Order: sequence, then C-alpha cells, then structure tokens
Amino acid sequence: MDLGDGTALLTDRYELTMLQAALRSGTADRRAVFEVFARSLPNGRRYGVVAGTGRLLDAIEAFRFEAAELDFLLSNGVVDETTAQWLEKYRFSGNVWGYAEGDCYFPGSPILVVEGTFGEAVLLETLVLSVLNHDSAIASAASRMVQAAQGRPLIEMGSRRTHEHAAVAAARAAHIAGFATTSNLEAGRRYGVPTAGTSAHAFTLLHDSERHAFEAQLASLGADTTLLVDTYDVERAVRTGVELAGPSLGGVRLDSGDLGALARSVREQLDALGATGTRIVVTGDLDEYGIAALAAAPVDGYGVGTALVTGSGAPTASLVYKLVARADRPGEDAPLRPVAKRSPGKPSRGGRKTAVRRFDGHGVARAETITTGEPDPGPHDRVLQVPLVRNGEIVGREPLAAARERHARSVAELPAAAVRLSRGEPAVPTEFVDGGARP
Amino acid sequence: MDLGDGTALLTDRYELTMLQAALRSGTADRRAVFEVFARSLPNGRRYGVVAGTGRLLDAIEAFRFEAAELDFLLSNGVVDETTAQWLEKYRFSGNVWGYAEGDCYFPGSPILVVEGTFGEAVLLETLVLSVLNHDSAIASAASRMVQAAQGRPLIEMGSRRTHEHAAVAAARAAHIAGFATTSNLEAGRRYGVPTAGTSAHAFTLLHDSERHAFEAQLASLGADTTLLVDTYDVERAVRTGVELAGPSLGGVRLDSGDLGALARSVREQLDALGATGTRIVVTGDLDEYGIAALAAAPVDGYGVGTALVTGSGAPTASLVYKLVARADRPGEDAPLRPVAKRSPGKPSRGGRKTAVRRFDGHGVARAETITTGEPDPGPHDRVLQVPLVRNGEIVGREPLAAARERHARSVAELPAAAVRLSRGEPAVPTEFVDGGARP
Repeated sequence: MDLGDGTALLTDRYELTMLQAALRSGTADRRAVFEVFARSLPNGRRYGVVAGTGRLLDAIEAFRFEAAELDFLLSNGVVDETTAQWLEKYRFSGNVWGYAEGDCYFPGSPILVVEGTFGEAVLLETLVLSVLNHDSAIASAASRMVQAAQGRPLIEMGSRRTHEHAAVAAARAAHIAGFATTSNLEAGRRYGVPTAGTSAHAFTLLHDSERHAFEAQLASLGADTTLLVDTYDVERAVRTGVELAGPSLGGVRLDSGDLGALARSVREQLDALGATGTRIVVTGDLDEYGIAALAAAPVDGYGVGTALVTGSGAPTASLVYKLVARADRPGEDAPLRPVAKRSPGKPSRGGRKTAVRRFDGHGVARAETITTGEPDPGPHDRVLQVPLVRNGEIVGREPLAAARERHARSVAELPAAAVRLSRGEPAVPTEFVDGGARP
Repeated sequence: MDLGDGTALLTDRYELTMLQAALRSGTADRRAVFEVFARSLPNGRRYGVVAGTGRLLDAIEAFRFEAAELDFLLSNGVVDETTAQWLEKYRFSGNVWGYAEGDCYFPGSPILVVEGTFGEAVLLETLVLSVLNHDSAIASAASRMVQAAQGRPLIEMGSRRTHEHAAVAAARAAHIAGFATTSNLEAGRRYGVPTAGTSAHAFTLLHDSERHAFEAQLASLGADTTLLVDTYDVERAVRTGVELAGPSLGGVRLDSGDLGALARSVREQLDALGATGTRIVVTGDLDEYGIAALAAAPVDGYGVGTALVTGSGAPTASLVYKLVARADRPGEDAPLRPVAKRSPGKPSRGGRKTAVRRFDGHGVARAETITTGEPDPGPHDRVLQVPLVRNGEIVGREPLAAARERHARSVAELPAAAVRLSRGEPAVPTEFVDGGARP
C-alpha cells in the first residue's frame, strides 16, 4: 500500500471537471479568492480551534500531477488532453493567508483565504477542507478536554478508534490543543509529539499470574513505569505492585469501573503503603464531561481515546470553502468583485475578508471584527490572518511547539465563559463590517 | 509528506513496551489468540457491516520495521537493542481468520481471529483496530443509507469532511455497502471505485451569468452532464438548462432548501419542458433519515457527504482486540487455554471462537451461534470465518466487487426488521455455546 508523496488525487472529481470547463470557456485564468469558514460551532460550543495548517502547507507543496495521476485521469475520461497538459505543469502559484495554527475561531471567522487563478485555487478545495475539517475538529474537542483537566496531563490514545492515518493527525492536533503525550508512534516520529504507553490487559493475561506480569514489566521498564491494575482485583494488584516496585512505583492505571471512587480508594491504599508519589492515571471512555466529573478525585492524569479522535460528538468542523470574489477577465490587473450564491439557508457573504480580534484593556477578547476592507486594529487588538503561501512559496511553516503555545495563549485571552462545557453562545461575538470591496 | 510504504509505526507505543517486557520474561513466544469483536452495536442499530479486511491484509503485509523505524524507536528509548533486533526480523508468521468483507455482524461476533506468538500478534492490535473500526463504521452507516434509498443510486461525496486518507477508505467502504459512485479520485485510482462529479456553486459564480456557466459546462461535459441549479433561482436555472442542453439534459442537482418540494416542482417543470428523462439528484446534509423522507419524492439519486464519512452518529465501530487464549509455555505444541479479564462492565469471554449463521428453511438468518468448539453448521447454515492469512501468507485477497456482492446478499438474508432505521435490538440474536477449549 504505497500512499506515495502526491496529494493531487486526494480530491473530488468535480474540481477537475470544473477546471476543464473553465479552461474551455476562458474563465480558468480569472483571479479568484476562496475563503474557508464555519457557519456555526457544533453542539453549542463556545470556540473552535484552527488546526492542520502545518499539514496543509506540506500537502499543498505535494499537490502535483505526475504521470501516474495523469494516466488515471485520462484513461478514465475524467479530463481531456488539454486539461491534462495544464495539470502536468500545475504548481500553486498564488497566495494563502490564514489564522495561525492553534488560534481560536468563531462562526464566520475567515480562517483561510486562498487567492490565485480560479483554476489553481479551485483544485485545492477538497484537500484544504479535508485537512482543516479533520484536524480542527480534533483540536476543538481536545481543547475542551484540556480545560476540563485543569492542568492535569492528558494522554491521547485513540489511534485504534479511527483511520490509521487520521490517528497520526489526531495526535498532532491534540498536542497543539494541550495534550501532553500520545500513544501513536508515527506521530512521535513525524511530528515529534512525545509518546507514552506501558501495557494492556493482554500483558497481564499472558503471564501465569498478575505478579509475574508486574515483575516482567518492572524488569523491562523500571520502577517508574505505570502498572495496569484492574485486570482482576484492584486492591490486590496495587498491593502487589508496590510490594514489587517499592514505594517509588511510578504509577497505576485504572481503566474500568467507577473511576472516581476507585481513584480515592487506591490513593488511600497507596499512601498507606508509603507510595505517596505514585501517580494514578485513569482511562476508559473519558470525554470532557467525564474528565470534569473527576476534578475532585485524586487523579494525576487522564488517557482519552474514542472521544478525542471522534471530536467528542463533532467529528468534523463543518468548514466550507467558498468563492467570495473573482475578476471579470483574466489577468493580474483585473479588479476582483464580490460574489455569493443565494441558496436558501446557506447564506454566504461576498468579498475577501480580513479579521481582527478586539481586546479590552484587561487583555480579554471582546469581539471578532470581520470586514471586506483592510484590517483596522486598535492598540490592544490582533490581526488574525498571517501569510502562509506567497506567490506559491510556503512561508508559514513553524515548529509544532509554536502552535501549541499559541493555542494556550489564545484560550487564555477568551472571556471566562469560553471554557464552560455547557451549550452556549460563541465566547466572542462576530461582527461583520462592510468595508467595500478590496481590489 | 512522504507517508511511505511502512505501517509499523501506525501503532501504540504500549504494543512495543509489552513486546519488550515479554521478550525479557520469556513469554513473547507463547502461542496466543486475539479476537476482534464489538460489545454492542451503536445507537440501537440492527446490524453492523465488516469492512476494511482487504486494506488490512495489505497493511499487515507492509508491517515491517526498517532502519528508519528502528532508529526512531531506539533513539527515543521506546525499545532496547534486543527488542530492536527482534523487530528487524519481524514478519507476521501466524494465521488470521475473519468474517468475509461485506458480511454483516452482531454484538459478540468474532469478526477477526489472530493466532501467532504473543509478540507477533500483539503488535498488530492498533493497526487491526484502526482499519476495521473506521471502515466498518462507514460501511455500517452506508448500508442503512442504501436500504433507505430503496434502489436509487447513492453518490459518496464526503471527502472534504474527513481526514484526506480516511476519505479514500470511506469511499471504498461505502462502495462495499452499495454506494454506486464516489467523488474521491484516489479511491478511483487505488480501488477502482467509479467516480462522479460535475460542478459546484463556485463554477456558476465564476461566470458572468448562470447561462454562461451552463454553456461552459455543457460544452465541456456534454448534454448528459448534471447541472447545479440552486445558485440563484431554481426555476430559472432549470429553464435555462433545458433551453441550452435540450430535453436530453442528463440531470439537475438540488443542494439546498426543501428538497422534497423542490424535487416535485422541478420534476413537473422538466416534464413540461419535455425533459422527461432528465434525472434529479439531491444533496445537502442528507443522512439515512433524510433519504428515507424523500422516498416518495421524484428523486433519481442522492449525494451523501458528512453523514457518510462520520458514520452518521457512530464514527467508530467500537471493535476491541482481546487476548482470549494463550499457551503456558513457548512452542507450537503447547496447548492453548482460555483467558479473560474481570474488569467490571467490560466482560470478555475466554477461548478462541468460531461462528455460524443459522438460517431457517426460507433462507432467513435466525441466529448467530458462537462457540469455543468447532463450528457445527446445519445444511442451511453458513460458517462465518474464512482464512485470511495462513502461516504469514496472505490468502484472503479478493476483488472489491466480491465484498460488494457479498454485502448485498448478507443484508438480503436478514429478517425484514433489520432494515428498519428506528432503534431496536440486533436483527439476529447472538447465542454463545460453550464448546470447551480447542487445542
């Protein structure tokens, strides 16, 4: 299963049929602006988190039609020879601006702006949305879990509950949102996310007794390891673990039952055994609500699987990619004019937009101002779009740590209500200001 | 972004730490049997659909630790030298049986059985679950949509709402479950799924008028194409479309509004214009319930996006991979004995299992008999597990069409209640029969 380097066929057929028809009608070279935004936040959430930007920049760079792709397209009648020749030379040569990765967003926030010819920009639609919809959905859910954990570390361990490559991206997005570690080794290799993990129930069941299993794990991983203690009887397992490892046993993991009550009794037992530094990690179908419910329990860390990789009830961010402006004729100098469809229930605002987050004197975000004019930040405000691609050259690459730090700052700037788990309005209201069309 | 051929790091760290500890304790070479099953079906569904098997066989074959993987594992302290040497020689040499791809399953159905040494079989856990959980979730949702569509064709068009590689697998899974086509070109190239797609609102907005856009599309794609008619005014667009293409216009697509009412008025308009053969395709946040609600409307095809790729409320199949039997000592001749943990709320049944689907005299499935003994099929019954890997050699490959045909047959065998969309019990009850442990 060679996935190869190329990303050009990770797209919808209609992007190519539109290109072909536009090449024929002479409109493919019209300058065009597409914007990515969400019409709403899912499930009454207070904010969303932009994630996937770094992955997207790599994917845009790899968006090339090589012989294998062209052969498929031609032999299946997807495109004609003229279009294939155009595709062979395809390199995205336009500009992309976007909210910096890790920043928060709200309904209508123009989190990505793609400017180029219609032909070159329309081709990126599906890939842009796939990457941003997936990664932002995961990061948005992850951020709520991080807030619910109130400083306790979170382990991402959902790889087994999602597509094997989505799992790698999910681990990356969770790390941006504040998760400490991941179980996913490829995310460690590819993105440098710290990895974690020690053992499963199968390891205990493999051995002739739980004692044998613990001995084997301690011999291999040292006393600082975390023992899984709920295969048979938790109290007996904790006793055995401390007996074998001594009071410097690193941690114990609880994966089933009433996690709050168990954590309390295990904490008492550990303390009584002198293992006062031994951590208690809990796992087992946790989501942000389950984490919050354990706030008063003596828990030292949470492992989250299914809820993380499925976006905790919102597995996609529902971002759309809309043409908002285009020229009337080909050429760099042709002015852009706003366009928008009039489909009922799906209103779009025409015109290329900029965005500014407005802050009060205490550094608290109070409004998201979106305008078709130039951004107009006050002294406390932040212009939200940054350059990502300039004339086809990637300029927005940054270390993953930068996105992670940005996210922590961005959430900290939101009004206090933002971190409530209950359904509500977006934490920051979006204001649209008509600024006229920009050239 | 080179994803490369290898799949060995698409796994959880703890699989490798367990291997290392087991190598050290001398238990890694004990023969072991793991089983994949679901404890329940999500959201009161009546059946699940096995999908991903073909992809999994490719992924198992590519599960190799090359220099790049070993470097990462050693330099990050995930494994020690001894373990790295073991991994370097790793080839799965065991056996895998499973429900054939496309077959239906029920709670407890042992849809995959992996037998090998503990070390070689435990390493596959994460990858096996990632592939089967994702693809089965999509296929299970897709099958309900196919039933709801009552023979009308379905187009899979959800690529933009899920991870870019998950999208390819989703298109494949949907096709197995009966979807006719996909928008995803990579699924066309890699798996031969037929692709479809013509144009989006952006194409209409790009042109100086809807008429210009339709002319461009018809010139490029011919009169048999499908025109998107809801950018401005549906009635005017339909009139323009038939005027330009003639009564042999292939189709029109409605993507917004009250799809049932619109389909009726558009059908009347088309018929009045003599375009009696022009198809009406509807899209726009459809799921199985939305499709069922349009059963009486004059609709000729459905496009499904978000709901398909997110499993329509169940984005993962919640399949687990559990050690059910293992030997007491290394060696092929050591007898297997059943094992099971005793964690509260997560009961497992020890012992390697076989399964038979029991049919009545009318060919209707009446029971799923699962036993730790040999399968005992009656004359009308079907043994459900087939060989997939034998002594490390892949033996279960088949064309995608075989899985698609099998799924159609498998659903048709279920009791009539199986295709109800309402919440209910599994369509076929699962019976566990203690057959004693098999050697």
